Amino acid sequence: MKRSLSGIQPSGILHLGNYFGAMKQFIDNQDKYEGFYFVADYHSLTSLTDPKSLRENSLNIVLDYLALGLDPEKSTIFLQSDVPEHVELMWLLSNITPVGLLERGHSYKDKTAKGFTPNTGLLTYPVLMAADILIYDTDLVPVGKDQKQHLEMARDIAMKFNQQYEVELFKLPEPMILETLAVVPGTDGQKMSKSYGNTINMFASKKELKKQVMSIVTDSTPLEEPKNPDNNITELYKLFATPEKVQEMREKFLGGNYGYGHAKNELLEAILEYFGEARAKREELAKNPEYVQEILANGAKKARAIAKEKIMKAKAAVGLIGNAYNK
Amino acid sequence: MKRSLSGIQPSGILHLGNYFGAMKQFIDNQDKYEGFYFVADYHSLTSLTDPKSLRENSLNIVLDYLALGLDPEKSTIFLQSDVPEHVELMWLLSNITPVGLLERGHSYKDKTAKGFTPNTGLLTYPVLMAADILIYDTDLVPVGKDQKQHLEMARDIAMKFNQQYEVELFKLPEPMILETLAVVPGTDGQKMSKSYGNTINMFASKKELKKQVMSIVTDSTPLEEPKNPDNNITELYKLFATPEKVQEMREKFLGGNYGYGHAKNELLEAILEYFGEARAKREELAKNPEYVQEILANGAKKARAIAKEKIMKAKAAVGLIGNAYNK
Repeated sequence: MKRSLSGIQPSGILHLGNYFGAMKQFIDNQDKYEGFYFVADYHSLTSLTDPKSLRENSLNIVLDYLALGLDPEKSTIFLQSDVPEHVELMWLLSNITPVGLLERGHSYKDKTAKGFTPNTGLLTYPVLMAADILIYDTDLVPVGKDQKQHLEMARDIAMKFNQQYEVELFKLPEPMILETLAVVPGTDGQKMSKSYGNTINMFASKKELKKQVMSIVTDSTPLEEPKNPDNNITELYKLFATPEKVQEMREKFLGGNYGYGHAKNELLEAILEYFGEARAKREELAKNPEYVQEILANGAKKARAIAKEKIMKAKAAVGLIGNAYNK
Repeated sequence: MKRSLSGIQPSGILHLGNYFGAMKQFIDNQDKYEGFYFVADYHSLTSLTDPKSLRENSLNIVLDYLALGLDPEKSTIFLQSDVPEHVELMWLLSNITPVGLLERGHSYKDKTAKGFTPNTGLLTYPVLMAADILIYDTDLVPVGKDQKQHLEMARDIAMKFNQQYEVELFKLPEPMILETLAVVPGTDGQKMSKSYGNTINMFASKKELKKQVMSIVTDSTPLEEPKNPDNNITELYKLFATPEKVQEMREKFLGGNYGYGHAKNELLEAILEYFGEARAKREELAKNPEYVQEILANGAKKARAIAKEKIMKAKAAVGLIGNAYNK
């Protein structure tokens, strides 16, 4: 079975865009690949400087994934910072990675162009990303378009290392481009994104979730009149309802005497039904932190065994004679 | 007792300049400070890409230091790559270190000015150096003039971390400027340096050592004539002989009928006597690799225990919830 690896940014409360854009595919693919999923907490230090948020987000994202159906029996789930070998490999790879390659990174260029004073981590994190991938002999990395360059860097770095040290140590990972499902629209019709403040958060309280759904922007056609069935509500409803149910809603809009408020209530019900099981499971998990810790500990153990073996070989290849991993 | 720390570059065969410039002072100071001496093998990856040389040099430098009198009962001697926590701390520190600070590093500027295509390690190694120092709560770092900037960076980084994360985690290290002993002249009268090819290597074979001493550059004054007593031979002889003996040699030069060859032989004898014990000890140690391994293993164990405690605190401070060090 091919090994697939994904880092998950612990960047706060999840929304429908995160779920339908990536998480759902990870979860749906669990039986197809040997999945490695890690909370990219080392990475998040490049932008997140509040320890409390990092702690909370790291744990919450694990709860979210488990609740949504990521199965620790099928996939290896762990915290990046439980496998420090990632960072050690990063240092070895840093010494064969030209500074120029990193300076040309899209994300680095974008951020510095905005007048941002960059920290070193922001420049060098693609090398850490390469280490994340290469340390596990990863076959496939699910990537969105914006991450493709980083995967190419990882391939370049792997090739350079193998060549320079005359070894066949690192496997060249392949990108697995995520299917572009319908872009998930936010409450204002733009792409759903935390930075636009237009999100619907599937794990929010019912009250909060209702507030978000009710804030979906519509026009002011009076209740009794027919309405355009291609609106922000039906676009979201499509994600949860069968084509027949969607068709029903469209017809009600066209028939008149059907208000946006009615439709929003139906959408809310559909969301709550779709995520009902996950919401209940998440509540249970949140009450049981020992169980979650155990999953993370097991995941770290499994991941670390692989990472240790690889880092020992990498150190031997470059001429480091330390025996840190035999002690 | 104050803790002092030095990284030793495994950069090849040692010469008199290395010894009188730095090593001798480390060894002479063993009773004054709690010394931590590590072979900076991670660092050497920034310039050394030949694994075989790195392996050999790393072991040889340990033999050299032990032979010259560094005492594993008094000082902690270890390989940097046996304490991967250095690199992990480097990553944490990278995220509070502006790229600009590193770009202004003298050593980086010098190397890039020479048209050298820099690897990332060359840019970022001052952060690793900061981690080396800070992870042990080092009080004092013996530095030459060229290293002073790196120590200042380490202090800046420590202050920034403490401030940003509102902790008193890192001690600010102080420089311990090495006494400038007489600069050791090479065989051509310039400063002794591997890159000038003018070195005298105290652990070379007798034959090789003789060849080096005989290659000391002199003028062509005939044997019977008086000679300038301030020449390359007397300059080196001063390092090994008592003032009386040096005076004797000077008078012989002034008196005539005393050739440079005679003086070189006296110098050779003085070097062999000065390093006689060390040369014998080094031969013994080289026959006993298990003993050297044991010293390094003990040193690593001691250093790593301190480093682990510090990295756990640093990870907690930035919000990383992994438990890698409790497993």
